Amino acid sequence: MRILGIDPGLAIVGYSILDVNTEKDSYELVSSGSIQTDKTKDDASRLNEISRDLQEIIKTFKPDEAGIEKLFFFKNQKTVIPVAQARGVILMVLSQNFIKAYEYTPIEVKQTLTGYGRAKKDEVAFSVAQIVTGRIPKLDDTVDSIAIAVCHARNKLCSPEQYAQN
Amino acid sequence: MRILGIDPGLAIVGYSILDVNTEKDSYELVSSGSIQTDKTKDDASRLNEISRDLQEIIKTFKPDEAGIEKLFFFKNQKTVIPVAQARGVILMVLSQNFIKAYEYTPIEVKQTLTGYGRAKKDEVAFSVAQIVTGRIPKLDDTVDSIAIAVCHARNKLCSPEQYAQN
Repeated sequence: MRILGIDPGLAIVGYSILDVNTEKDSYELVSSGSIQTDKTKDDASRLNEISRDLQEIIKTFKPDEAGIEKLFFFKNQKTVIPVAQARGVILMVLSQNFIKAYEYTPIEVKQTLTGYGRAKKDEVAFSVAQIVTGRIPKLDDTVDSIAIAVCHARNKLCSPEQYAQN
Repeated sequence: MRILGIDPGLAIVGYSILDVNTEKDSYELVSSGSIQTDKTKDDASRLNEISRDLQEIIKTFKPDEAGIEKLFFFKNQKTVIPVAQARGVILMVLSQNFIKAYEYTPIEVKQTLTGYGRAKKDEVAFSVAQIVTGRIPKLDDTVDSIAIAVCHARNKLCSPEQYAQN
């Protein structure tokens, strides 16, 4: 199964494409990167950039499912609206392409990867490098998107019964 | 000039199409209504519904510009994320169609229509009925979208110099 991991944002959307085979316990990083929007443009144009670039990524890699970070209003009140607006566009593009999106909180992602819900960034990055084969990127948002993809793979493929309702 | 007014939401998006002629001081309501999404579906599907329906409205009525309500995180913390996600999709569809979106706070809209920034819903509705010609709808979200379109028309067309930078 091919999973698209997404860390949403207006300035930077981290993304990764992971080929997962749970029988072999293999997680191959096929591609990863970031969509970075032009800060001199207005929000509407930047959201349109995200839509176009994500469309291109989906067309190229044809993922089966997506994992995306869940948002909380209390996380960062200053950025919650622009991030939610970008997230809306991302969810819509996924739906247009018939790719089901599964949502995970940062705590669920950290818990799944490191066994500890309050793990630090470098601990998550270390786990990502241990689990995944392929060239691990440096950008935080991209690494986060891989962590989200792994989280989805482990939660869904290793305990599929809880997803029967979805 | 033809203006599209939008009151964003995930469950209901109010919209209106207003033909404005400031020389004649005429505000003709060409069409209005609401996009209502299926509550039994997931957010991604509902956002996709909004995108498709808005696209259809734009294709039918070909507005020149849009006015849309501005969001604040402190307005209603429970709904801010779903509303912002819907708003992101709306801004993106406008950008895709090269329609510039202008944002107004509820206070600016009320101030422009009634002269009082804290006017009540029925006072705004009364002003809308006084200013606009055409059949005024009953749904609050649709009436709000007309108020936003009038607000944009009056602010932009009556004091265009402040928009020179846009």
